[in-house]
Amino acid sequence: MTRAILLGSGNVAVHLARALGAAEGISLVQRYARGNSNAELFDPSVPLTSDLGALLEAEIYIIAIKDDQIPAFAENLASFHGLVVHTSGSVAMQQLGPVRRKGVLYPIQSFSARRALDFTGVPVAIEAEKPEDLALLKAFASTISDRVYELASAQRKMLHLAAVFANNFSNHMFAQAEKICAENDISFKLLGPLMEETVDKALDMGPKEAQTGPARRDDKAVVHRQMDLLEGDLKILYKTLSDSISSQFNQ
Amino acid sequence: MTRAILLGSGNVAVHLARALGAAEGISLVQRYARGNSNAELFDPSVPLTSDLGALLEAEIYIIAIKDDQIPAFAENLASFHGLVVHTSGSVAMQQLGPVRRKGVLYPIQSFSARRALDFTGVPVAIEAEKPEDLALLKAFASTISDRVYELASAQRKMLHLAAVFANNFSNHMFAQAEKICAENDISFKLLGPLMEETVDKALDMGPKEAQTGPARRDDKAVVHRQMDLLEGDLKILYKTLSDSISSQFNQ
Repeated sequence: MTRAILLGSGNVAVHLARALGAAEGISLVQRYARGNSNAELFDPSVPLTSDLGALLEAEIYIIAIKDDQIPAFAENLASFHGLVVHTSGSVAMQQLGPVRRKGVLYPIQSFSARRALDFTGVPVAIEAEKPEDLALLKAFASTISDRVYELASAQRKMLHLAAVFANNFSNHMFAQAEKICAENDISFKLLGPLMEETVDKALDMGPKEAQTGPARRDDKAVVHRQMDLLEGDLKILYKTLSDSISSQFNQ
Repeated sequence: MTRAILLGSGNVAVHLARALGAAEGISLVQRYARGNSNAELFDPSVPLTSDLGALLEAEIYIIAIKDDQIPAFAENLASFHGLVVHTSGSVAMQQLGPVRRKGVLYPIQSFSARRALDFTGVPVAIEAEKPEDLALLKAFASTISDRVYELASAQRKMLHLAAVFANNFSNHMFAQAEKICAENDISFKLLGPLMEETVDKALDMGPKEAQTGPARRDDKAVVHRQMDLLEGDLKILYKTLSDSISSQFNQ
């Protein structure tokens, strides 16, 4: 049994705790959290502490706290002999500073505490300073996910940036679609199958191949006609996106 | 049996022909196409003509050709007694000009001729000039889709614009993510589950509620750090999108 300790209480911590609780060969021996948030979403049989001085010895410590708090928090774990990993896409492994055995376990997903999600399908990017720790981390991550990949900090940072486009920015496009629907008394749900097919196509054919629409065809008449229907921020977005698509396809 | 004739050979025509072929109470008695494109994707037992003079009488004629060709093409159908509908999101019903009984049947989906798709799940927006034709069209559309909605031309035009955001523009965001992955030797497939969850969340919670990321939190340090990793068009997109998200959440 690999003894693991989880530090955190946010969205990632909730899902990791659940996945680790169900994993073979892993014993979640303790959880650390400063406060009481999401308490009802964690298994009460896992001992909880808010006292860093009461942390047990374990083979793996998993830090699942806010990105910008990771470097300062890691100092509290400098004395431990176990492998210490954080779970952030954008924080370099070396930000774990004084920690003796450093690593990263980054689950590439957008977690919500209250949404069920099958962790075995979540791709996990791992990194460790020492080869033996990488092997340990790989075995550990493989108990919760079927998709474990090694990725250095520099690559992970760019993957995280790609995820901003794939998640934050695409969602913002959905939000604009919803806004247009709401303003015109149209149910946003009408776009559901189209949105699902957009993702399926992008993954099957690749998004460049899957691109369609007036900007793709460089159909300036339709682009201008549609732009005239919009104003303010929506118009700026429409123009910027259309220009970008046109320039990438019609040069 | 409702006798229907399909005019066209593109992506929409391929999927409509398949759906109509499987529909109860519909007989696809003829198909019109100028050329031979996608011929192998249509049921050969449906008589095909390229001669407008040879068009049969039918209860419904479905025009599935390019948007900008619809008005001129409709003139060829001015003498028929059946209901004539086009399938475009952006073309007003009145663009069917001299046609006697006008209507629209707009399937809200991105069709590819060679991708299988269950038409019964595709939302279909319908419109007709006369109440009795709307009833006929509703019954007709309901044989191929479980999700039939009445929508006037003005609303449909805005829905089509919303679809540009939900499909064309979100796909362009996926394309930028793929580009960043490719440039950094990272498999784009790592983002698959995240992209799928993005759509699921947007549809479950609404995209505004589902929005996350540094721009949402107005975390200027991270926004600037990420922007510095990009150049050219990617940088412009990152800045425009981040500014737009910030301004919509942090005013």
